[in-house]
Amino acid sequence: MATGNPSKLAGLARQLRVDSVRCAEVAGSGHPTSSLSAADLMAVLLAKYLRWDVSDMTNPQNDHLIFSKGHASPLLYALNKAAGIVSDDELVTYRALGSRLEGHPTPSLPTVDVATGSLGQGLPIGVGLALSGKLLDRLPYRTWVLCGDSELAEGSMWEAFEHAAGEGLDKLTAIVDVNRLGQRGPTRYGWDTGAYARRIAAHGWHTVEIDGHDLSQIDQAYAEALAVGRPTAVLARTTKGAGVAEVADQEGRHGKPLPNGREAIAELGGISDIWIDVPEPEYLAPPHQFRAPADYEPQPYEVGEEVATRTAFGQALSALGHARPDVLGLDAEVADSTRMEYFAKEHPDRFFQFFIAEQQMVAAAVGMQSRGWVPYVATFAAFMTRAYDFIRMAAIGNANMCLIGSHAGVEIGADGPSQMGLEDIALMRAVHSSTVLHPCDANQTAALVGAMAEQRGISYLRTCRGDCPVIYHYDEEFYVGGSQVLRSSPDDALTIVAAGITVHEALGAADILAEEGVAVRVIDLYSIKPVDVFTLRQAAQETGCLLTVEDHRPEGGLGDAVCGAFMTGGPPPVMIKLAVHDMPGSATPAEQLRTCGIDRVGIAAAARAYLAELDATGEL
Amino acid sequence: MATGNPSKLAGLARQLRVDSVRCAEVAGSGHPTSSLSAADLMAVLLAKYLRWDVSDMTNPQNDHLIFSKGHASPLLYALNKAAGIVSDDELVTYRALGSRLEGHPTPSLPTVDVATGSLGQGLPIGVGLALSGKLLDRLPYRTWVLCGDSELAEGSMWEAFEHAAGEGLDKLTAIVDVNRLGQRGPTRYGWDTGAYARRIAAHGWHTVEIDGHDLSQIDQAYAEALAVGRPTAVLARTTKGAGVAEVADQEGRHGKPLPNGREAIAELGGISDIWIDVPEPEYLAPPHQFRAPADYEPQPYEVGEEVATRTAFGQALSALGHARPDVLGLDAEVADSTRMEYFAKEHPDRFFQFFIAEQQMVAAAVGMQSRGWVPYVATFAAFMTRAYDFIRMAAIGNANMCLIGSHAGVEIGADGPSQMGLEDIALMRAVHSSTVLHPCDANQTAALVGAMAEQRGISYLRTCRGDCPVIYHYDEEFYVGGSQVLRSSPDDALTIVAAGITVHEALGAADILAEEGVAVRVIDLYSIKPVDVFTLRQAAQETGCLLTVEDHRPEGGLGDAVCGAFMTGGPPPVMIKLAVHDMPGSATPAEQLRTCGIDRVGIAAAARAYLAELDATGEL
Repeated sequence: MATGNPSKLAGLARQLRVDSVRCAEVAGSGHPTSSLSAADLMAVLLAKYLRWDVSDMTNPQNDHLIFSKGHASPLLYALNKAAGIVSDDELVTYRALGSRLEGHPTPSLPTVDVATGSLGQGLPIGVGLALSGKLLDRLPYRTWVLCGDSELAEGSMWEAFEHAAGEGLDKLTAIVDVNRLGQRGPTRYGWDTGAYARRIAAHGWHTVEIDGHDLSQIDQAYAEALAVGRPTAVLARTTKGAGVAEVADQEGRHGKPLPNGREAIAELGGISDIWIDVPEPEYLAPPHQFRAPADYEPQPYEVGEEVATRTAFGQALSALGHARPDVLGLDAEVADSTRMEYFAKEHPDRFFQFFIAEQQMVAAAVGMQSRGWVPYVATFAAFMTRAYDFIRMAAIGNANMCLIGSHAGVEIGADGPSQMGLEDIALMRAVHSSTVLHPCDANQTAALVGAMAEQRGISYLRTCRGDCPVIYHYDEEFYVGGSQVLRSSPDDALTIVAAGITVHEALGAADILAEEGVAVRVIDLYSIKPVDVFTLRQAAQETGCLLTVEDHRPEGGLGDAVCGAFMTGGPPPVMIKLAVHDMPGSATPAEQLRTCGIDRVGIAAAARAYLAELDATGEL
Repeated sequence: MATGNPSKLAGLARQLRVDSVRCAEVAGSGHPTSSLSAADLMAVLLAKYLRWDVSDMTNPQNDHLIFSKGHASPLLYALNKAAGIVSDDELVTYRALGSRLEGHPTPSLPTVDVATGSLGQGLPIGVGLALSGKLLDRLPYRTWVLCGDSELAEGSMWEAFEHAAGEGLDKLTAIVDVNRLGQRGPTRYGWDTGAYARRIAAHGWHTVEIDGHDLSQIDQAYAEALAVGRPTAVLARTTKGAGVAEVADQEGRHGKPLPNGREAIAELGGISDIWIDVPEPEYLAPPHQFRAPADYEPQPYEVGEEVATRTAFGQALSALGHARPDVLGLDAEVADSTRMEYFAKEHPDRFFQFFIAEQQMVAAAVGMQSRGWVPYVATFAAFMTRAYDFIRMAAIGNANMCLIGSHAGVEIGADGPSQMGLEDIALMRAVHSSTVLHPCDANQTAALVGAMAEQRGISYLRTCRGDCPVIYHYDEEFYVGGSQVLRSSPDDALTIVAAGITVHEALGAADILAEEGVAVRVIDLYSIKPVDVFTLRQAAQETGCLLTVEDHRPEGGLGDAVCGAFMTGGPPPVMIKLAVHDMPGSATPAEQLRTCGIDRVGIAAAARAYLAELDATGEL
């Protein structure tokens, strides 16, 4: 079609509306009214501005479109039909088992880069894509983000406005569908697009206020966004349910099919099959070519050296940056603590500072990984929780990224519980596709930092604050799913299973017990997910008891991971779990471990109690 | 002292500096430079504006002071010394084991309402206190929040600015210590207080820009905040490390004792013992008196009725609101989905709408509970994760609050994984002091909603989207830590342990197996934390196998909670865990449960497989 033809544009908008309504009709659920409000906005975008090589959605020159208001998925799929990517037959599989057209968008559709559906995420992820375009891919593609007005209440949106302006992301456009009605009623500002414009402009964006159903105003706004040289927010006043009189601008119509879908389709002009020649990307710059990776040569540490695992992480990541040109470092203003600063110094062009905005940091990583980069994202384990919803959504979108949580557990000492990562293993284990690693020395850390880059899904590395002795030779191999048996004899009376700082305490406990004539096995379970089922089962069979010890809450951590190894294949062994039960205050690291009963003295005492009980009863 | 006397004010400021430096000296850690920058700001506040009845910090007329930049705790404790609340002897216990003067503030000190130390939380919590003052306590106390400039990067701060302006919280003052330097280097805007002022003003606040070391400018700014009738941000340009030449305005001085503490103390004028007559609160209105609670009379449901547990929650909370005048309802724009709307309709004066700002919602609850109110906070279980860092911090501050996560698991059906709470049990179990409840029918839900109000700590109730049959009589009793044995016989071949929707599937599986001549026990484990160890152990002993089934990820959920019951007291039974292993797409609820193997067919199949193996081998 001649995309400049206004009546054809109007026809396209009508078709997007009809197809949106049809989606909800066939599924018996979905958000047609939230799709109707944005149909005109998307019609103009598709026909005139969005540059897609529909024959190759992996073309690096392609623009990117994110539905931050992911519930408007019917509109997204209607748009994909008009672009020739989804057939009409497929369109009506919306929300059916096995369909690519899920209730909320996921990358199972090639035009979708990232999963959305939890509000407030699309724009910060778009910031990541725009950063990639500007600073990594160095290509002039644009990132268009369709936002809802309700989601502007999410703080993560303001992190995104701040960061995009701070980084001068002129290729980023937010299209805000100001339809006045949230899920349960009117938004705070209703149709006052000025209220949004004043705020967003104060954060450094260019803003345009328009009637979101006036095709020429929309056209002009997008043209302005292209020309202005700053990130632009198009604040479009729209009507929820626009085009269908029965539901237009009505409360109580969110997230359900129209009451009279058939009549609505007729009212909108009936089913059509307009197909759009989506503008192709211009070839303005050569696409980024990754040079071949070199060998990863992390700094070796001598056995007995005292090195914090966080330091080893930073040094290893820096080495990995030399080996792999696709590795990135992302920080939320704590690089000196997480030791990301080593990477920052040697690879300033691949280091990204997000200030204290963990949601924006993780969201940016999601955007960057969708372009093939390998982001390492580090903050305190305790503060990574801030971005959990983004991590959860990243897993839904099959994202690959590496997260590092430092300052694990009570071992940090005097700073107190606000700074202690005590729930992080539980959180990260529960993420679909996740890998959870917790090294205990510098050489092991370096090996795992390298392994993470090869890993699919969400990988998490937990590091400790304090220096601790190197116990492994730098040639030792460590891998995802592995463990290391550190003490073993035919006479082992039980097995201590530990990770991170507690490995050192477990070894100390083994020494104490050895002096008392008791041999115990010690396993360094550095891969907490996946867990080394074989080694744990062997230890269970040979020693009859697994005593787990972790610097973490009792729930969802190492102990539960060990239990998980015995969920099939017969009865589990006796298990004893040592963990952080009480709320710590401030104290020295040694006092903290002692108070929680997870230092060598506490472990030895627990072992003795078990053995005494065993002696007394012959069983437990 | 005559608080208007400028030289004495300067003396107080010097003392606050000296005592801040001393804290870090004795502890060998801490944040003296971040305390020095705000000392003048706090000296004027303490001497002239902050109204505290130091003889009774529970006096409802008292002002509230929150250190959002919690790492400036040395300054807070120095201020408490000057107010006569902390002795000089106690001051030097800073960060020692057992001291109330922790690395970051907690309510172990009576002048501290809430725990801080994770940045970006103090201001949104202050919004909760200011809301309490305006709409609940109806007292003219003021809430003063000392913020850092770095933490303005957190989206949660902008949620707070938005909400405070929207609610017209004129008794809320943010004092922003713009010291230019974050933890690892300069902030984005450095000393450009105008950059902050423009943004904050755009969000509806009154702003004042001052020199934060000029006592009279500070005085004037606070006077203006009192007079202006809007929430006010005082943007104070300060010098990090002010007063000590060696560290003033230097990078690399964050979070560590001064290099030459003794000399610094001398440079600052040496140790002094100025004691301030803190202004007392005026008695301007009678304090709020809660009327005596009435009997809680939730709506009874008939066995066999089809009612969603989310609906039962909403109706029960509404009934609880009639019984208890201290119960509040907090929503993030999904009250129609969580069914909080029942409460909203009947108790509009105790219902709070936060729009889609989960962090602000939970933070407000933290503030409100510190004033003795009992907040119930509801959103989708998936979106509650957004506020996890606030929940974690609330537990550190001994907060009591009730959280409700709706739309649990794949059972929601067609909306897809972005809307499914699949990690929430793992997250909430790991919270210190938490209670985790997951009812399966309407009468049970109603009973637990009532029980939560009596519970200390963080209580979490998980509800389901779809209607399901009422299986318990409304007179049945349910309690925290309980469970219900639904099927039991002397011949039970194994025990199925379920909660929520899977209870109904477990009963269905028991029926299927019964038809095949196999008796199984069924336990409704509605209290997931604490867990009913006695009943689980009895079932283990009598049936030899526990088959857990949950609509949740395999990690950290019901199955792991059941394992936890066997961490002491002898070997565990055979355990089999059914859970959601793969990533769901869209489908009907029944298809979802079937695909994940957690419906009655899947449960029966798992039971059969276990029994066949047992038959074949005589053991497993």
